[in-house]
Parts: sequence; structure tokens; C-alpha cells
Amino acid sequence: MRAAVIGLGAMGMGAALNLLKAPGIEVAGCDPRNAACDEFAAAGGSAVTRAADLPAGTEAALILVVNAKQVEAAVFGPDGCAAKLAPGAVLIVSATMAPEEVRALAAEAEARGLHYLDAPVSGGAAGSRAGALTVMASGSATAFEKAQPVLDVTAKKVWNLGAEPGLGMTMKVVHQLLAGVHIAAAAEAMALGIKAGVDARTLYDIVTTAAGNSWMFENRMPHVLDHDETPRSAVDIFVKDLSLVGDLARSVAFPAQLATQAHQLFIAARAMGHGGVDDAFVIRAYQALSGITLPGEE
Amino acid sequence: MRAAVIGLGAMGMGAALNLLKAPGIEVAGCDPRNAACDEFAAAGGSAVTRAADLPAGTEAALILVVNAKQVEAAVFGPDGCAAKLAPGAVLIVSATMAPEEVRALAAEAEARGLHYLDAPVSGGAAGSRAGALTVMASGSATAFEKAQPVLDVTAKKVWNLGAEPGLGMTMKVVHQLLAGVHIAAAAEAMALGIKAGVDARTLYDIVTTAAGNSWMFENRMPHVLDHDETPRSAVDIFVKDLSLVGDLARSVAFPAQLATQAHQLFIAARAMGHGGVDDAFVIRAYQALSGITLPGEE
Repeated sequence: MRAAVIGLGAMGMGAALNLLKAPGIEVAGCDPRNAACDEFAAAGGSAVTRAADLPAGTEAALILVVNAKQVEAAVFGPDGCAAKLAPGAVLIVSATMAPEEVRALAAEAEARGLHYLDAPVSGGAAGSRAGALTVMASGSATAFEKAQPVLDVTAKKVWNLGAEPGLGMTMKVVHQLLAGVHIAAAAEAMALGIKAGVDARTLYDIVTTAAGNSWMFENRMPHVLDHDETPRSAVDIFVKDLSLVGDLARSVAFPAQLATQAHQLFIAARAMGHGGVDDAFVIRAYQALSGITLPGEE
Repeated sequence: MRAAVIGLGAMGMGAALNLLKAPGIEVAGCDPRNAACDEFAAAGGSAVTRAADLPAGTEAALILVVNAKQVEAAVFGPDGCAAKLAPGAVLIVSATMAPEEVRALAAEAEARGLHYLDAPVSGGAAGSRAGALTVMASGSATAFEKAQPVLDVTAKKVWNLGAEPGLGMTMKVVHQLLAGVHIAAAAEAMALGIKAGVDARTLYDIVTTAAGNSWMFENRMPHVLDHDETPRSAVDIFVKDLSLVGDLARSVAFPAQLATQAHQLFIAARAMGHGGVDDAFVIRAYQALSGITLPGEE
């Protein structure tokens, strides 16, 4: 099978390297950045900077770029790969976007005789390197079938949300609602505890063994305790993802009250200049509003 | 050691029965409800309906009533047990209340030569029956020491939040902030998913294996999926507990934005007549606002 990975960032590179090692799959990479192409070449792969230069007859393209606009350009734009795809090829699109953008792209693919798998992922760069992504997918049975060899190598779990492109992305956006609200709630609880005189580390130890725990509380609050702002995922990511939550909610007429409130807090942290640091530092918004001193800043 | 358990509800009965089996501890129960006293008697214990009738010389009183007012009445009121307590006895107070109410009760105890352990619990009725409560405690070294024999029998973990009564309760209130926000967030995500056409059970299966998970999402959303309103913990509990969060936040000048929003949703569910059902049915507020159909109501 001839496959391509478009977008060799933290997620795409991991997937591309795993496909490179997989028997029976011939993979080409694509990224506008020469450095990314060089990195893939150093591992024994070959990559191009323009999707239009991918090998003719590509049967499956895994697309791990940033948004719908980049997907549109990489496939259907003047520098896109559409002409190089085999008839009936499948696009496996893992860029995060609004479900309505998914439906527009899927319709465009269908009009050209291509199959479209709506396939947002979670699992981060580490999951991608390990070939252990979680994929929240939707699309036709044929799209799933054609994508299978690529998914077998890159994912540990593929969820089937239904036949309609957009349902996978809807699930991903709902998931990001929980992720974003839980990070903001973790920050709110930690900040209130500090303000009210509870030892922050004891608070962490208690919550993580009790019913108030969340995956995000447990994973992110050590960054605050250790005063480590290194962005595993940045405040700006949730400014964007909670925008998608708001867009989805509005498009189906749903009042997403907690997500809206959490979004405002991430926007505030960004406004304060913390958009690029770890998302746990949404706690800076609470700090500004309550005057607390964070661990490591005494 | 002569001990008493005041309040033989779901929590107190479990603790009293465990103390009854413990060697070296002589325990008496107290509850205004004859049925509760009879239940304890049937298990071989003895119980009184007025705290003033507890045995003289009681050295430790574990108090598992509903609020500060009931603690005040059970110890210091005309029918209270104060006169029956041994000099230097310890009050182990596990009723949920505001930290400032804790400080007032502790001061009153101290003025009478009693020790006070601020000892809110989590773990529910099941944890209490199993002798496996989690206690978030604060108080003097002497209070902890005197309470130790009782805690050894009733708790699996005792956290020491510090010497000042009120810190234990502050921790408990902060914990309830997370618990309440997470239940409301779970309802918001589930309701948005349903509104946007995602299968509710698949949504549950995905979230519980992903970074968007919380203890509450995992524990409570099956009640919605199974359409089971039986209250393990009721909407009204979080109307009350998120009130305590708001009180604490205001008292230390902290803007608890997500907790405030979550509180409004529980209040709405109560207003709609769902105060007595399982707290997962805060989702009724989202249902009212978005017109979704819940599982089991098609």
C-alpha cells in the first residue's frame, strides 16, 4: 500500500516513523518545513515540502495538520495532492476543526471520488510515537476499510462514531469541553485552597485519592506545584479548542455554560501573556483575581 | 475507652457498628429517631434518643449529624452531652459546615476544657460500613491523639491539615467544589453530545478511557445512561455543598467562577422538582435548556 503522512509535526512525525517500519506499507512524508523533511529522511524516509509532489497513486493520506484551512490547501489547493491520489483513495483527516468544516471537506472529497475518514485523535505526541493514538472516527464502511492498514500501525484504539463525517469531530470537541473545564476547575480549586490556607501539596494528595479527582487535575496540577511552565499543551490550545466547543454548541443550539466560563478564564490567561505556557497556568487568571502566591513564587 | 457516636444515619451507623466490634472500646449510640436506636440495639449496641442521656465519662464523641446547628444542640444544648463528657474528652466532628462554624464550635469546646478534632469525611455510607472513611482532619496534637483509637476503627486514611480547626473543613469544601463542578461538567458534555448526535454510551466509553475523564463522570453518568434516578447522593446535597463553597470563597475574597455556575445548575434542577433524585440528574437543567431526550425516555 502506498501511503502518505501530511504534516510532520509532533503528531505526524510519530505516525510517519511507525508507518516507515511497517511491512507492506510504502510511506512518503510531506511538510513545508525543510527541517521536518530532513528529520524524516535521516530516519530512512522520504519527504516533500509540497503535497503536490507526493508519489502518484497514493492510496491513503493521513493528514495531521493544524486546521481545516491547511487540510483544504494540502489536498485541494494548487499545491495540494489531489491529482496524485489513486482513484478511490482515502483521506484520514486528524486535524482538529469544527464538525461543519469536516462535512464540507468530506463533501469535496466525495465529489472527486475520494473516501473521507473523519479521524481526530487524542494521545499526544507520546501516543503518536508509540503507535498508540486513540482515534474518534466516523465515515463510510469503505473509508474505514481503506484506512485500516494505516490505523493498525498508528492507533491502539479506533472508535466508530457512525457513518457520517463530522461525528468523530463532534466527539472530539465534546471531549475537549471536559478537558478544558477540568483544567480550569483544577486551577479554581487549587487557587481557592491556597487562598484559604490549605497546603497545596496536601490538597493535591487528597484530591487525587478522592472522588473529586479528574485525569486533568492529577496530570496538570504537578506543573503548578513544581512551578514548571513548560508547555506540554499550552493555554492557547484551549483558547482554540473551547472556541470550537462554543461554535459546536451554538450550531446545535446548546447553552454550554461551564465551557463558556472556562473559555473566558483561558482567554484571560492569554491576555495576561501566558498563552504559550502550560495550560495548567490558567491558574494565573485566578491569581490575578485573588492575589494568591503560587508555589515556588514565595 | 468509652466512646459515643452521635447521629446514627447512613454514615454514623456504619461507624457505630464498627466501634461495637472493636476490642477495648465501649460505644454508645445516640439518635433522636427510635428506629435508628432499635437498629443499633438489634446489633448488640445500646443507644439513646437524647445526647444528655449518654453514659457519664464518655472520652470521645464521634459526631456524624447534618450541620453545625445539630452539633451545637447535641453537645452544648439543653439536651446535649457536654455534662456527660469526661474532662479533656475529644469531640470528633464530621458534620459538614462552613469553616467559620467549625472555629466557633472549637472555641466553645476549648472554653469547656474539651478537645476538638475538625474531621469531615468522604467515602460515603459504603466507606463507613467498611471502616474505610477518608478523614480530612485538623486540630491540636492532643485532639488527634485522643481521637486515634476511634479513627483507627472507622477510617482507612486520616489526613492532617494542620493544628487549626477549620482547615479540615476548608479542604472538604474545596473537594466539594471539584466534585460539584465535575458532575455538572459531565452533564454538560453528555447533554451536548446527545444534542449533537453522538451516541451517549459510546461517548461514555470514550471519555472514561481518555484525558477528559473524571471520577464523577465515570461514577455518575451510568445513572443517566441507565435512567436510574435512585439518589446515591442527591441534587440537594450539591445545592447545599456548593453554597458552602460560595460562602468559603466569599469569606476569603475569592471569585469561584465555575463553582458558582455549577451551583446555579443544581439550583435549577432543584427548582424543576429534581432535588431529591441522584445528583447526575442535574442534567435535567441542560435538558430544559436544550430540549434533548435522555436515554430511556425516547
